[in-house]
Amino acid sequence: MSEERTEINSLGEFGLIELLTKNIEIQQASTILGVGDDAAVIDHFGRQTVISTDMLVEGIHFDLMYTPLKHLGYKSVVVNLSDIYAMNATPTQITMSIAFSNRFSVDALNEFYEGVYAACEKYGVDLIGGDTTSSQKGFVISVTAIGEVAPDKFVKRSTAEKGDLLCVSGDLGAAYLGLTLLEREKQIYLESPQLQPDLENQTYIIGRQLKPEARRDIIEFLQEQDIQPTAMMDVSDGLSSEILHICKQSNLGVVLYEEKIPIANETKEMALKFSLDPTAAALSGGEDYELLFTMKQADYDKIVLSEQISVIGYMTDISEGAHILTKGGNKFKLVAQGWNAFQQ
Amino acid sequence: MSEERTEINSLGEFGLIELLTKNIEIQQASTILGVGDDAAVIDHFGRQTVISTDMLVEGIHFDLMYTPLKHLGYKSVVVNLSDIYAMNATPTQITMSIAFSNRFSVDALNEFYEGVYAACEKYGVDLIGGDTTSSQKGFVISVTAIGEVAPDKFVKRSTAEKGDLLCVSGDLGAAYLGLTLLEREKQIYLESPQLQPDLENQTYIIGRQLKPEARRDIIEFLQEQDIQPTAMMDVSDGLSSEILHICKQSNLGVVLYEEKIPIANETKEMALKFSLDPTAAALSGGEDYELLFTMKQADYDKIVLSEQISVIGYMTDISEGAHILTKGGNKFKLVAQGWNAFQQ
Repeated sequence: MSEERTEINSLGEFGLIELLTKNIEIQQASTILGVGDDAAVIDHFGRQTVISTDMLVEGIHFDLMYTPLKHLGYKSVVVNLSDIYAMNATPTQITMSIAFSNRFSVDALNEFYEGVYAACEKYGVDLIGGDTTSSQKGFVISVTAIGEVAPDKFVKRSTAEKGDLLCVSGDLGAAYLGLTLLEREKQIYLESPQLQPDLENQTYIIGRQLKPEARRDIIEFLQEQDIQPTAMMDVSDGLSSEILHICKQSNLGVVLYEEKIPIANETKEMALKFSLDPTAAALSGGEDYELLFTMKQADYDKIVLSEQISVIGYMTDISEGAHILTKGGNKFKLVAQGWNAFQQ
Repeated sequence: MSEERTEINSLGEFGLIELLTKNIEIQQASTILGVGDDAAVIDHFGRQTVISTDMLVEGIHFDLMYTPLKHLGYKSVVVNLSDIYAMNATPTQITMSIAFSNRFSVDALNEFYEGVYAACEKYGVDLIGGDTTSSQKGFVISVTAIGEVAPDKFVKRSTAEKGDLLCVSGDLGAAYLGLTLLEREKQIYLESPQLQPDLENQTYIIGRQLKPEARRDIIEFLQEQDIQPTAMMDVSDGLSSEILHICKQSNLGVVLYEEKIPIANETKEMALKFSLDPTAAALSGGEDYELLFTMKQADYDKIVLSEQISVIGYMTDISEGAHILTKGGNKFKLVAQGWNAFQQ
C-alpha cells in the first residue's frame, strides 16, 4: 500500500468534488438532480424545489479590510440567489449560518444582517433559518438558497446542443478590476497608513466587486420572450472556466468571439491603468454573477434588441474543441485560465 | 449616540439570534414557519418541506485530537437529521459545505465523506449539493437538511398545552460523560504522551459522544401508534434548556420529576467516577440528540409499554413556573444550567 499523502491542491476544487462525490447513490425518488450543477432539484408534487449552497470564508473569499459588513451580508445572499436563477428558477427562501470570533461586536453582526435583509427584500426571499456560532478565528458564512421552478423548466449545464448560440448577460471583468483596485489601495494603506485611499471614483467596478446583483431580470426577460435556454449557469469563476463546464457537461465544443465579449468602458480603462488585458479579466476574473446560457438559433430574433444579452459564440461538435477567435484573427484553445492562452 | 460596544457574550446565543432576526418579515406565501424552531417549513403544493441547518467549527464543536474524521462526518449529518425528525418529518436530502486548511489531505477528506455517506445510507437521505473551500485555519462544516411532512403534521415547540405529558426518548447525559472521559484522556496524553489512553471500555458513553444517532425509530413509533405530539424538539443543549424552550414558546410552566429522567447505568457509573451528579449531566450535558415531546394524557396507554419513551413530567399553567421535583422531595426552579439549581 502506498503511504504517500495526496495533496488537495494536486486535484483542484473540481477534481476534489468529483473524487468526493463519485460514489453517491441517489435513494430518494424526489431527488431529480444532485451534485454537479449550480443547484440541486427536488420534486415536490408537481413543482420542483431548487437548492444551492455556498460557503464564504474570511481571508479566502473576502477581506474585511475593504469589505463593509453590510455589503458582505448582501453579497453572501446574492451569490446564492444567482445560482438559483442560473437554474431558470425563482429563489424563495434562504438559510444563513455564520461563525465568528469574539473580535466581532453585536453591532458588527447587525450591520452584516442589515445587508442580508436588504438582499432578501430586494429579491423577495425569506430568511427562514440558520445557525450562529463561534469560531476560533475569522468569519465564516454558509448560505443555502431554496427556489422553485415549474416542472421541466429547470435548466442544467449538460443540455446544450450543437449549433446553439452562446449568450451572456451584462458585462464581464468589472468585479475583478474592482478587486484589483481595492487590493492596490490595501497595499498602499499597509505601507503608508497616513495616505487617503484613492479609489478614483471607480464606483462601477468597485460596486461590481462589493455589491453584485443576481440577474433576476434576465430570467424574467427569457420567460416573457418564451425562451427556454438549452443550458445555463452563472459566471462566478470567470467566463472561460464556465464555458468549459458547459462544453464538458454537454459533450460539445465551442467557438467564442473575443470581440463579442461584453466589457464595460470603466473596466477597459482600469485594465489599461493596470496593464491588464480586459479580455483576460473577462475570461478569468470571476465574480461577475452574470448568466451564461445557450439557446436555439431560432430564438435569436427574440433577444437581438436586448442591450443586456450578448451572443458571444456558438456550440460545435466536441471534435472541434473549444476555441476563442481573437480580434487579431488568431484562434486559440480556450483554457480555464484564459490569459495563459494569450501569453503563449 | 452611545459609542459603547455591545459584546456578543452579553446576549448569549439565543439573545443574539432574537436580536438579529426580530425584524424579519415573511414575503413568500410558501413560508409556513421561519426562524425559531428546529427547522423551517415551506409549503410545496400539498406537502411541506422542512429545512434545518447547522454549522460545526473545529475547536468549538469538535476536537480532532479524539474525533475520528469518519465519525465527524457521520455526526455532522445526524445532528441535522435529528432536527428534521424533531419536526415530526422525514429527512430526504442534505447539502454539505466544508472549509478546511491545507493541513488536511485528500485521504482525510475521503474519510470524512465516508462517514457522511454512511449516515446518508443509514437514514435514506441523498447528498444533493454543497461547497468545498479553503480556510485559513481549522475545519468548518455546514449542513442543511431537507425533509418532508404531510400537511399539518409538523410539530412546533410552541403548541404544548396545559396538562400535556412531557416525554423524552432513550437516555440522557451519556454524551456529556463520553466527552468528559475523552477530554480527560486528552489532558493525560498532552502531559504524558507515552501513556496509552485508558477509555475503560466505555464504548457506550464514548459512542454516544462520537457517533450519535437520530431517533427515526421514535418518529416511526409515534406514527404507528397514531400519536401526534403537541410539541417537540431534539435534545442538543441539555434537557433543562430544551424544556424551558418549550415552556417559553408554549407559554406554559412544567413539573419535571428527577426520578423519571432516564439515565443509563454506564452514565451513572462514570458520573460517580468523575464526582458528577448524573442528573446534572442529563439536565445540562447536551448532545444527546434524543427527542423531547409533549402529548395528550389520553395517549399515555399507547406509549406505556415502550422502553424507549419515558414520561418525565407534565405541563402546567405558566403561573406555576418551571420546576424540578428531586428524589429527595425538594422542589427547585428549573434553570437552563441545570446543576446550578442543585448547588444553591
